[in-house]
Amino acid sequence: MMAETVAVNVVTAEGLLKQWQGHRRLTRRVIDAFPEEALFKFSLGGMRPFADMAFEFIRMAVPIVDGVSTGKWEDLGVNHDRQKPTTKEELLQLWDAQTAELDEKFPRIPPHRFEEVDKAFGMWEAPGIATIQYAIDNEIHHRGQGYVYLRALGIEPPPFWERE
Amino acid sequence: MMAETVAVNVVTAEGLLKQWQGHRRLTRRVIDAFPEEALFKFSLGGMRPFADMAFEFIRMAVPIVDGVSTGKWEDLGVNHDRQKPTTKEELLQLWDAQTAELDEKFPRIPPHRFEEVDKAFGMWEAPGIATIQYAIDNEIHHRGQGYVYLRALGIEPPPFWERE
Repeated sequence: MMAETVAVNVVTAEGLLKQWQGHRRLTRRVIDAFPEEALFKFSLGGMRPFADMAFEFIRMAVPIVDGVSTGKWEDLGVNHDRQKPTTKEELLQLWDAQTAELDEKFPRIPPHRFEEVDKAFGMWEAPGIATIQYAIDNEIHHRGQGYVYLRALGIEPPPFWERE
Repeated sequence: MMAETVAVNVVTAEGLLKQWQGHRRLTRRVIDAFPEEALFKFSLGGMRPFADMAFEFIRMAVPIVDGVSTGKWEDLGVNHDRQKPTTKEELLQLWDAQTAELDEKFPRIPPHRFEEVDKAFGMWEAPGIATIQYAIDNEIHHRGQGYVYLRALGIEPPPFWERE
């Protein structure tokens, strides 16, 4: 006899955006905790400086929400060199602009688009929800690396559990 | 006029478990990538060795699923010193035992328990889903730190996007 499976829904689009923005508030504090020069230059193990990781989050977040919304994906490389920030202040301004843009755009993702499969950025084939989750996980992953940079610099990072 | 809001469900319990186990497969590969001694001793910036972080994931995963399922939460410190692994092999055996235990227990979490608020481990007040998500995020966060340890040791970490 086959068991009947009923989908148990545990996360809504609204809850996911709230969770993401909570992570983004924490990431913003991590960016801000770096001294200006270390943000753009300090690294360990031959990895990228934290500014490069933070800029990667920026290159992914709104473009992914746009792509999931519309099904149209731009090349990940487009226009990036032009807008790459060279100061902490510019980076944080870009960050804050994305915070507002996400709050505006995310709730307008058509519900059916979360499960539809696209080739995100023409490269990664996955349902919309998985591509969004990848962006969040990627941010948590690299932000954790930023914590090691901060500790190695003798700076206490912001508490991981604080998201407000 | 107030807009009607309809919850858009984007993640099911089944999908969340699948995502978690994907992350756990990657974390297992990160544990395994460490040389035995470095796993238990290497650190940067005064942080914990990766074995301690991995053991934290183990102390959280099944206990959280048990707590969310039943509403009964044990003290996080109980019995841990006894079972703390001292070799990579022991750590991986514990890991694999939890993989099977999660697959068995997670699908039996009563659906209403994901939104009910508990004081997890008697300390952290949150809905079941948020406590589970915290465990996953905490694993991603510290595993990212393990990547820095590996790079600093001259070891190429397993690819972040590979979850099978």
